[in-house]
Amino acid sequence: MTIKLHCFGESGHSYKVALSLAFNNLDWEPVGIDFFRGGSRTDAYRSDLNEMGEAPVFIEGDLKLTQSGVILDYLSEKTGRFGGSDPDERREVLRWVLWDNHKMSAQAGVLRFLANFLTEEKRSAEVIAFLTGRMKSALSVLETHLNGRDWIVGQGITNADLSCCSYLFYNEPFGFDRSAYACIDRWLARIAEQPGWKHPYDLMPRAFPGAA
Amino acid sequence: MTIKLHCFGESGHSYKVALSLAFNNLDWEPVGIDFFRGGSRTDAYRSDLNEMGEAPVFIEGDLKLTQSGVILDYLSEKTGRFGGSDPDERREVLRWVLWDNHKMSAQAGVLRFLANFLTEEKRSAEVIAFLTGRMKSALSVLETHLNGRDWIVGQGITNADLSCCSYLFYNEPFGFDRSAYACIDRWLARIAEQPGWKHPYDLMPRAFPGAA
Repeated sequence: MTIKLHCFGESGHSYKVALSLAFNNLDWEPVGIDFFRGGSRTDAYRSDLNEMGEAPVFIEGDLKLTQSGVILDYLSEKTGRFGGSDPDERREVLRWVLWDNHKMSAQAGVLRFLANFLTEEKRSAEVIAFLTGRMKSALSVLETHLNGRDWIVGQGITNADLSCCSYLFYNEPFGFDRSAYACIDRWLARIAEQPGWKHPYDLMPRAFPGAA
Repeated sequence: MTIKLHCFGESGHSYKVALSLAFNNLDWEPVGIDFFRGGSRTDAYRSDLNEMGEAPVFIEGDLKLTQSGVILDYLSEKTGRFGGSDPDERREVLRWVLWDNHKMSAQAGVLRFLANFLTEEKRSAEVIAFLTGRMKSALSVLETHLNGRDWIVGQGITNADLSCCSYLFYNEPFGFDRSAYACIDRWLARIAEQPGWKHPYDLMPRAFPGAA
């Protein structure tokens, strides 16, 4: 049964799941969401796919899941991979997935949206400065944690890495200068060397009007 | 063995865990963090308690846990309560805990901080307006979900409720008008009727300078 992932290329939250699907070489296909024209906030989307009005939505037969952290956890149960090798590691993976949703992707995703996908008159310099400060605090925590480590948890790649890395692979400028974070830079390179890795735009259809 | 929770009264993330400890009638005590003088961001705090520089930190003997969602999950394993009654419910609980960390508490906590615990000249009206818009979107999702439901997941109180409710119990103004959300209002009343419920300031020591 082919898994369907309702998603769009610009969504780092979708990319977290797409990476797990790709690394696990599962049978899946992306279903594009017309995000920039409000496609994830219609009444039909909320009633049929996700009341939270968010991407991604994962469909496997009768099973429908949302929230990237839940889907990653489900895929770990299904494949036995990326969830941590014992209860302590599993808790540590969840810890970083929660931190990412709260402190890293929450800032990076919104900043990237504000800086690249909004018209200039709708951007607030004060909001961008505020979120940039918070993102840099998060990057500093991650940089310190990765000093001397290959992976966020344990000895191999886990959902903690898939969750935290996602927005950092996009090339559009949003205040993250990869060269300023040596440990994060090497860690991203390590992830991109995994068999099956692709850039988000090569895994999912773009939604931004006019994008290739 | 008495559980120690490093926390402070103004921290809604700490309150989520304190509520679970109180509802489960566990042997625990709060250890105050001097948050407003930077107590959670010192080198010692980061090295000894939490590299993320956040509250709460849960200590039970040799076990140290951070991130409220991880601690709530651990307490559910320990007590058999609040984690959902089957795998579908467990995933649904995790879904709302993640959503709360990303979309609800992330906004509500920061807004409450900006509006009440910062000097006026440090507040940005544009930042407050931006975060308020995002918080109201989240409140609307929760209000719709609770329409016709007593609890966020299943037939009883779970970690989803403990996580999502936390900042909504504080009285300081931060843009949440409880009377405008009838379903949330009744749900909060339902939580406050649970045996052991207390206001955050009655469970944890306050950190704001000059607070009683």
